[in-house]
Amino acid sequence: RRREDAASDGAPQGCVFTPMVTGPQSKTDEEQAEFENSSDFANYFCTYEFLYHQKQMLEDQRRMSAYYSAIMDNAMRFKDKVVLDVGAGSGILSIWAAQAGAKKVYGVEATKVAKHANVLVKANHMDHIVEIIQCKMEEVDLPEQVDIIISEWMGYFLLRESMLDSVIAARDKWLKPGGALYPSRACMYIAPIFNGDALEKYKQYQETMNNWHEFLRETKGNYGVTMDCLTQSYTAEQWQHFMESAQWIDMPAEDLVGEACMIKEIDLNTATVEDYKKIDTTFSSRLSKNSRVSGFAGWFTTPFEGSPAAPASDPIMVLDTSPGTGYTHWGQQMFNIWPHQHANVGDVICGQIEVTRRQDNQRLLNVRITHSIEKASGKLAKSKHTETIWQIQ
Amino acid sequence: RRREDAASDGAPQGCVFTPMVTGPQSKTDEEQAEFENSSDFANYFCTYEFLYHQKQMLEDQRRMSAYYSAIMDNAMRFKDKVVLDVGAGSGILSIWAAQAGAKKVYGVEATKVAKHANVLVKANHMDHIVEIIQCKMEEVDLPEQVDIIISEWMGYFLLRESMLDSVIAARDKWLKPGGALYPSRACMYIAPIFNGDALEKYKQYQETMNNWHEFLRETKGNYGVTMDCLTQSYTAEQWQHFMESAQWIDMPAEDLVGEACMIKEIDLNTATVEDYKKIDTTFSSRLSKNSRVSGFAGWFTTPFEGSPAAPASDPIMVLDTSPGTGYTHWGQQMFNIWPHQHANVGDVICGQIEVTRRQDNQRLLNVRITHSIEKASGKLAKSKHTETIWQIQ
Repeated sequence: RRREDAASDGAPQGCVFTPMVTGPQSKTDEEQAEFENSSDFANYFCTYEFLYHQKQMLEDQRRMSAYYSAIMDNAMRFKDKVVLDVGAGSGILSIWAAQAGAKKVYGVEATKVAKHANVLVKANHMDHIVEIIQCKMEEVDLPEQVDIIISEWMGYFLLRESMLDSVIAARDKWLKPGGALYPSRACMYIAPIFNGDALEKYKQYQETMNNWHEFLRETKGNYGVTMDCLTQSYTAEQWQHFMESAQWIDMPAEDLVGEACMIKEIDLNTATVEDYKKIDTTFSSRLSKNSRVSGFAGWFTTPFEGSPAAPASDPIMVLDTSPGTGYTHWGQQMFNIWPHQHANVGDVICGQIEVTRRQDNQRLLNVRITHSIEKASGKLAKSKHTETIWQIQ
Repeated sequence: RRREDAASDGAPQGCVFTPMVTGPQSKTDEEQAEFENSSDFANYFCTYEFLYHQKQMLEDQRRMSAYYSAIMDNAMRFKDKVVLDVGAGSGILSIWAAQAGAKKVYGVEATKVAKHANVLVKANHMDHIVEIIQCKMEEVDLPEQVDIIISEWMGYFLLRESMLDSVIAARDKWLKPGGALYPSRACMYIAPIFNGDALEKYKQYQETMNNWHEFLRETKGNYGVTMDCLTQSYTAEQWQHFMESAQWIDMPAEDLVGEACMIKEIDLNTATVEDYKKIDTTFSSRLSKNSRVSGFAGWFTTPFEGSPAAPASDPIMVLDTSPGTGYTHWGQQMFNIWPHQHANVGDVICGQIEVTRRQDNQRLLNVRITHSIEKASGKLAKSKHTETIWQIQ
């Protein structure tokens, strides 16, 4: 009834993290909750059960070496400690924690990949220390409190996937007072950019619309049905797809045309879900180049500082996913604006950014940026405010 | 936490028909049923709500002209009749039925695309005849019985998606005695083939395994963790992905190396879900070429015969998705075997084929073929039986 074009690079097909639709509106809240819960499991956790996807993450060398260093350089902090690994996946962080000297490691993993983690733990002779538990973090029953929580929970633009919620829940329930989180902090950034792909996106949008008009003619000619009435809906659908969807990109530093702005800092020691569930803040970035502005890039950093009671050793390891610092599987998220605007060195792009969870799927994000350009020259007044909402899928 | 490589051709992303995972085993049957039901809605129906995907189907000219002819050439059968369109989508079949003279058409569509269908019906001035109802077919309450059921319910290899179940349910509940179904019959075929892509698949499999061994060395060298213990699991995962997943293909007739075998005929007037829920039959195909055999192709045809009481006019329209008859979005499903086998004109490939629904997702299929080659020359004994199970995702 329909054809899909599936990539074929070794990725187990048909099992990707997809957004959910909300159910029919006649559902009760309880039914809706059950629906979301089920769909969430099917859609979200499914991906992580394949070794192929684990391997993709294990091949991200910046991710790997940041965690490796954060653990190994602080072996004295892990020595004889009890550690909890939230979303253990293949179990690699659990094994490192054990290698660093932990006396006990609980690796909690919801998907079937837990089975592989178990094998890996045994093969690396850590089964006397590491215990892999296949369970959702929120439902696990541990026999003791822990000294350290390790977790690689970060999604695109930090918060996609909302897995931080599980880390916070684990902290509140299982971390001893004064215990440490690795990473301990997370910072989100945006900056104005110019990237050549942005124009390409607009061209692709135009092409699909040209193709649509051809389609209208053929449908009318061949089958006597007029479809012009759907043009507005189709336009909206395609504009959303091409122009209002964030893009993954591995961006060179040269694409940055202004200062990076930290829009959110999350202290994992104290944050609650409410603190980051909705981000709503202003920003202001001074242009460093005379350039067209094609939009914004968003990324994050996560420092591994241990806890005030047991600080990590200097220099503090920071996983940095900024443009130009080298490939990570997170890359950056690119938010394209249209039309592009021109700005000069010293001009200031200022505005407001809101990052919210999508109503139809709490694990996906909407990013709304309202911005204007204040000219340094004073010759031009403020450019008009432009507001766009992108989806991070 | 992970990168996906999404195609970007205008397809609304992140909303594709994906298989579901089964829930944790602690679930009760009732919970499991609710889980499947919710996931099914999220995964299956989601796709069809986008105009982009509707357009893909509307651009399939063989699909479109088969239905158009089946309806318009039998306008005398639709005249003053009450028609039910199961899974109406954009509503095109409903509009045609009205144009052909139906006095009332109910277009039942579960997804939000029903909204667009409504607009389309109005724009084509058929809202006095066509009524679009957004509802699952199984739950709809029509005010009357119908004379004709039209539906485009076919999936890959006919049965993927299991939408025929809804048509059968509609027939049992809403079709008047002697009423007609368009299409009225469906036939499934397989044939031995040689296709060059088959070797390519094996090469891709080998490449991912070479890459895996490189990955093992690096993980050991850089991070002190041995992963050899997962090689067997990874091999199985990749073999499944590359070699035991059916492939969509638009195949030229030359690729057929032996006779096509009809493995199933479904009379929609009388069939029950039990009749086609599991197909298990033998087949036998005489080779028409001296050729390597790279596997099998599977496809279907659907004749539009009306009913015995109200037969369609001659010649009977048949939607034929055989290799070499021209592009359809269904294409054919290709089942690759490994190693390839050689056969000569007159040799006979015989065996058994089983088509079953996947346990973890009733809308996906497993195809198991056990085959052997009987040499016409008599010089060689039967080749050994080879059995493979493919997934149609």
